[in-house]
Amino acid sequence: MTQGPAPHASTTRAASIIARCRELARITDVPGETTRLFLSPATRDAHTLLAGWIRQAGLVSPIEAARTDDAGNLRALRRSAVENAPTLVLFSHIDTVPNAGAFDGPLGVLLGLAAIEHLGATPLPFNIELIAFSEEEGVRFGFPFLSSLAATGQLTQEHLARTDADGISVADAIRAFDTGNGSRLDPARIATTCPLPPHTFAALEVHIEQGPVLEKGDASLAVVETIVGQSRLELTFEGQSNHAGTTPMPLRRDALAAAAQWIVEVERYAANYIQLVATVGRITTLPGAINVVPGTVHTSLDVRHPRDESRHAAVAHLLTKAEAAGALRGVRVHATVKSEQRAVPMDHDLTLKLHKAAERAGFDAQPIFSGAGHDAMILAAAVPTTMLFIRSPGGLSHHPDEDVREEDVEAALETVLNLLLHLHPKH
Amino acid sequence: MTQGPAPHASTTRAASIIARCRELARITDVPGETTRLFLSPATRDAHTLLAGWIRQAGLVSPIEAARTDDAGNLRALRRSAVENAPTLVLFSHIDTVPNAGAFDGPLGVLLGLAAIEHLGATPLPFNIELIAFSEEEGVRFGFPFLSSLAATGQLTQEHLARTDADGISVADAIRAFDTGNGSRLDPARIATTCPLPPHTFAALEVHIEQGPVLEKGDASLAVVETIVGQSRLELTFEGQSNHAGTTPMPLRRDALAAAAQWIVEVERYAANYIQLVATVGRITTLPGAINVVPGTVHTSLDVRHPRDESRHAAVAHLLTKAEAAGALRGVRVHATVKSEQRAVPMDHDLTLKLHKAAERAGFDAQPIFSGAGHDAMILAAAVPTTMLFIRSPGGLSHHPDEDVREEDVEAALETVLNLLLHLHPKH
Repeated sequence: MTQGPAPHASTTRAASIIARCRELARITDVPGETTRLFLSPATRDAHTLLAGWIRQAGLVSPIEAARTDDAGNLRALRRSAVENAPTLVLFSHIDTVPNAGAFDGPLGVLLGLAAIEHLGATPLPFNIELIAFSEEEGVRFGFPFLSSLAATGQLTQEHLARTDADGISVADAIRAFDTGNGSRLDPARIATTCPLPPHTFAALEVHIEQGPVLEKGDASLAVVETIVGQSRLELTFEGQSNHAGTTPMPLRRDALAAAAQWIVEVERYAANYIQLVATVGRITTLPGAINVVPGTVHTSLDVRHPRDESRHAAVAHLLTKAEAAGALRGVRVHATVKSEQRAVPMDHDLTLKLHKAAERAGFDAQPIFSGAGHDAMILAAAVPTTMLFIRSPGGLSHHPDEDVREEDVEAALETVLNLLLHLHPKH
Repeated sequence: MTQGPAPHASTTRAASIIARCRELARITDVPGETTRLFLSPATRDAHTLLAGWIRQAGLVSPIEAARTDDAGNLRALRRSAVENAPTLVLFSHIDTVPNAGAFDGPLGVLLGLAAIEHLGATPLPFNIELIAFSEEEGVRFGFPFLSSLAATGQLTQEHLARTDADGISVADAIRAFDTGNGSRLDPARIATTCPLPPHTFAALEVHIEQGPVLEKGDASLAVVETIVGQSRLELTFEGQSNHAGTTPMPLRRDALAAAAQWIVEVERYAANYIQLVATVGRITTLPGAINVVPGTVHTSLDVRHPRDESRHAAVAHLLTKAEAAGALRGVRVHATVKSEQRAVPMDHDLTLKLHKAAERAGFDAQPIFSGAGHDAMILAAAVPTTMLFIRSPGGLSHHPDEDVREEDVEAALETVLNLLLHLHPKH
């Protein structure tokens, strides 16, 4: 194995990974775009394509044939010659948002597979399991991470009872999934077929950044320190709707003016703290007529920070500001917390090793916070987990123009190979 | 005639007007609420009720039987004994917004009729025409004032071709209107049956204020000086939609933050000028998801002022402020003027006479600007016109709880009677 980037070979290896991502992107539930929902026909076709590539990899590397577990995840094991060897998991997801790009998810899976191919017959003191999770985005059932929850024993009967837009439950969708080889899945077998291998000592997800930080910093890679915690709230500003012509300014109780003052404050406050993001993404006015002073405004707030205490402090401060903006105008404010998610730090030791692997490969992988949720967040509850981010040109994701640069993919592959070659798990 | 309020009689006269308004409010196209649209079955039933009351008035006052003109307006003439006498028009409208109150429109018609009744046989040197306009609110055809436009020769073929939600044109709705006496209306006769009488020397509309100014000033009546001009605009703030988790604050182009800063500025600026009102009534964000930085915001602006130059200056200033709020965030702003309506001053001489009539009747009728549009605005283009406002408790209108106070209705009736008894038109 080369220990540093070999310019010519590099281009070829990364280009091949990118080409596979683009080929996979042509498999879709909606012709003309890339849309692959959990347990859909396109998922089955994607499995067939992936299983073929895994078979090819098996010609040069001791990776076994792919199998589909009962949560619809495609998995393949590269077995170590060492008896009772522990396992490292390379994973990401292959479901997509509607009208997606080619890289959010699939890049991690196909880069993992490429790493296994490029290892060839090189003996390692651990197994590698490659997992293509079937559900990360949460589009079909309005709930993300169902398949990584299944792999970590966290999927409940409540999850299985959730229904999609057609009223089909997760359990029924599992039963209905055609694996392509005549067999069907069975939710009753999830506890048997889905768990991570018993001695999983490390799990690594490679993923595009989906943000502009690496591009702004002119860097290829970043190592995730923490997946940020998140609070989602809904706020209602309740004033008084009035005739826009006959109500003088001092006699108004304008809910939108109050909300607007608060939105400016949300932006100003978050800009003061480098790790904080706060977003008002949604706003509606009632009655919502051009000639009526808005009586009611419904709005949302999304706050994220790598430290839970800082996030809670930000939310508390912003609610105070909302009330203050309302009080100036006789507008009452009511807030509801819709969801809260704690910050999830990546495994300290494994993350340090990933940093060192990047360094050995010749790349300065900066530490970063992940502002988005990932399967890595779910796996971190069960096994030592870390994440490697690849630069997103234009910060773009969840869009057909989502892209990656060959040199960045090569840097990531080289970093992953370096990590694999230098890991020495204790039994 | 008494020249000042006679407490006992007062209560009775005003109470009777209010009772008639409430009886009329039970005539509706939508059971359980008050909704009377232009040329609807409820309009015909309202005409029947009004025609009966006009017939009653004819027992004490020389008012002729009611007729329906070919724009669906109900009209009745109190003829002067003087030959070739000129005419004063008392008018308001009897159509309503959906789920309306009892007074917006009907109060002016029924107060006018009460004035005619209380004149009794008192000889006057002019005719009085009472007009109940059939379309002021503009609900059915999405366009207001159709019937007063007809009465002033301003109704065009374009107006007649407008269609309602069922695709029925104004012309067809006129043809289909059953007057209740077997005859049909005919749009071809509008130019013959609709015009105001040839020698109309004055027109007076009594209307509820529909705002909080009189209540705030603890006054019964106000005399309208000017119906304000109005600009309606739509603004688009065009930034960049981004992931709310992965996009640090300094790298955002948040269209909603820019719009919010501007909305606060709209409120602050208008509050500086006592005659100016400016309203942002509508706002939508795209994509409008809780976890996405808004890329696009569509919003509205309604600006009103009694002086057109001041209104234009306000609009220009606020557009500059929108661009400035956008420029801070890399957000482009695009504005379109959707409609412009010049301010309409009431007739100076007639308005002065109305002030004096109120004074003689013992009331201090303050001058006021009408922030809403009225039929008076349309009639003012053709004949000397003025308006008398009656206090709106709570500033409420376009609502089932819309109300008036008996003492205020009595004050208005007394003022109108005073005006009628002191007017001496020159031939």
